[in-house]
Amino acid sequence: MNSGAASNIYAIPDDLPLDSGQVLSGAQIAYETYGDLAADRSNAILICHALTGDQYVASEHPITGKSGWWERMVGPGKPIDTNRHHVICANVIGSCMGSTGPASEAADGTAYAMRFPVITIRDMVRGLVALLDGLGIEKLHAVVGGSMGGMQALSLAANWPSRAKRVLVIASTARHSAQNIAFHEVGRQAIMADPAWADGDYYSTRASPDNGLAVARMAAHITYLSEEGLTEKFGRRLQDRPDGTRGAKSFGFDADFQVESYLRYQGSGFTQRFDANSYLYITRAMDYFDLAEEHGGKLANAFHGTSARFCLVSFDTDWLYPTAESRHIVHALNAAGAKVSFVELSAPNGHDSFLLEHEQLDRVVQGFIE
Amino acid sequence: MNSGAASNIYAIPDDLPLDSGQVLSGAQIAYETYGDLAADRSNAILICHALTGDQYVASEHPITGKSGWWERMVGPGKPIDTNRHHVICANVIGSCMGSTGPASEAADGTAYAMRFPVITIRDMVRGLVALLDGLGIEKLHAVVGGSMGGMQALSLAANWPSRAKRVLVIASTARHSAQNIAFHEVGRQAIMADPAWADGDYYSTRASPDNGLAVARMAAHITYLSEEGLTEKFGRRLQDRPDGTRGAKSFGFDADFQVESYLRYQGSGFTQRFDANSYLYITRAMDYFDLAEEHGGKLANAFHGTSARFCLVSFDTDWLYPTAESRHIVHALNAAGAKVSFVELSAPNGHDSFLLEHEQLDRVVQGFIE
Repeated sequence: MNSGAASNIYAIPDDLPLDSGQVLSGAQIAYETYGDLAADRSNAILICHALTGDQYVASEHPITGKSGWWERMVGPGKPIDTNRHHVICANVIGSCMGSTGPASEAADGTAYAMRFPVITIRDMVRGLVALLDGLGIEKLHAVVGGSMGGMQALSLAANWPSRAKRVLVIASTARHSAQNIAFHEVGRQAIMADPAWADGDYYSTRASPDNGLAVARMAAHITYLSEEGLTEKFGRRLQDRPDGTRGAKSFGFDADFQVESYLRYQGSGFTQRFDANSYLYITRAMDYFDLAEEHGGKLANAFHGTSARFCLVSFDTDWLYPTAESRHIVHALNAAGAKVSFVELSAPNGHDSFLLEHEQLDRVVQGFIE
Repeated sequence: MNSGAASNIYAIPDDLPLDSGQVLSGAQIAYETYGDLAADRSNAILICHALTGDQYVASEHPITGKSGWWERMVGPGKPIDTNRHHVICANVIGSCMGSTGPASEAADGTAYAMRFPVITIRDMVRGLVALLDGLGIEKLHAVVGGSMGGMQALSLAANWPSRAKRVLVIASTARHSAQNIAFHEVGRQAIMADPAWADGDYYSTRASPDNGLAVARMAAHITYLSEEGLTEKFGRRLQDRPDGTRGAKSFGFDADFQVESYLRYQGSGFTQRFDANSYLYITRAMDYFDLAEEHGGKLANAFHGTSARFCLVSFDTDWLYPTAESRHIVHALNAAGAKVSFVELSAPNGHDSFLLEHEQLDRVVQGFIE
């Protein structure tokens, strides 16, 4: 894990009021920008990141050295064209890449740890709106997000309807289902079961709950991929063994199957760039997310009177946030009289498809953003 | 966990040869029987249990005090009628309810722990066939199993084709998919990440890897239920809080949602009756299962020349072993010229449906067993 990186930092001048009734004082937002802001400030696009994402949407991650998580989508001449648009991507509060989160110092000079207030998706967006205020951006050309980023885009559209002209929501949902909550709860329990978690107070120790966090990531990772995609990518293929034996069972507990090795790699790699407490807080925020509930129990109410244009995209093999969830949002937008387009794309790789090469997705994004 | 219970015990007189090339010496099988064996020994039905099941198919579990896991199906006048049939249900080797497994004493007087050999589904069936030999039962009226029990039924039919007249396979598969393996690997990693696991050598200590085992169970449990079933049963409903507040978010990490509370209960209850090392060994056996691979890569070969009658049953909401897996077996049986019937039943509760009240399932089982 990491508690900061060399991004732009915006210190939010006011206390940030939270849905819990608490306030977050002295919060800061770490963000990256790409492309020039027009003189009339009309060409800004806010990209919201997913659960384990960050502000490095189109630039190298300072810890992993990997290229930006959506570099195929964002950049000069790309579907979200930084020659024409000013792209802003900010780390959400609660996360661990420079924005205020559980690893940050509280007023007493030690890490918040579990004293960090439980936040919601709307609280994250409060932080983002504070940043936009600080940057003097009154109205976004578009707000864009996939997965948890889509939740933020929806929350911004619902609660700050004047702030975005276009709202692009990819592979997302307006509420977490019981199954979504269940998978997140497994992850949280895996972290909390790790003795190195130490009730969250591990920042001053040498240990961190990497084992628990890796298990949490492994469980979640399965939900990001489709059964078909896993079968195509790995099937029941065996690993070559360290002694040179090709594809034979070990009759032991090593990673015999390629899919086991892949998952272990995903789990351990993740612990190097992510804070376990942030994982707890952000999954909690996602589980709490229910946009209808925030608006009197009727999703259409969330969008009443909106003048924004919406575009919803789902993937046919996404079983984390299936197409039905996007349709549910589309119906609510229709009921609210909003301008909305919707497309279900065919893709083999489940929820993760929004991050992968997909020409049709590129065309949809480019066409909607203009 | 528990290392034995007051069942009948059969001591296998010979060494049990294993697929790994190792042998298991001095193994014993704990089993229960229900109903009288006919004088000509023609009315015996072997019921094979699932991953975390046991021999108490129709009698009280000695640790939990709960009634038998399939008591609605097995008993006097039930679809598997013990007034007419002699039902045998044995704990598989590798498990922890009296049959030899990692918690059992090895020759040196201490628990095998991870010295226990890695076993396969076929090895489990070797143990069951040894028991049938010991009981003098040459040919079963039927072998019956759901989930991992179905794998055993298939393995018995394929490898000991003369031993069963009828083969009933419910909610099962002839091979573990990449996704199946992935979920099991998460569970194993959760157990092994628990410091109390201590490389499996926890039997002589006060600790056992209950936290890891509970997380493993929670992850697996999600796969036993359908998304629809979870939504119907729990949705996003909140728990009443200990202070009497009804259905309000805690803005903390307690089990706010009923589905969280349910999963935690499933996890912690499981650790009282199951051994973590057994969980490792049995999930490994399931992941290794690929009946076609055992028979030259062609599933039809597994059933070549069989004279048994087969019945396959799947459930439409089972995403662990979906209907397509049963169909795959049916096609192989057709190709082998076997007598086979197949039905996909509609049920809201996913994989777990085979254990739950289901009138149509009762009729199918009763009709097939005769």
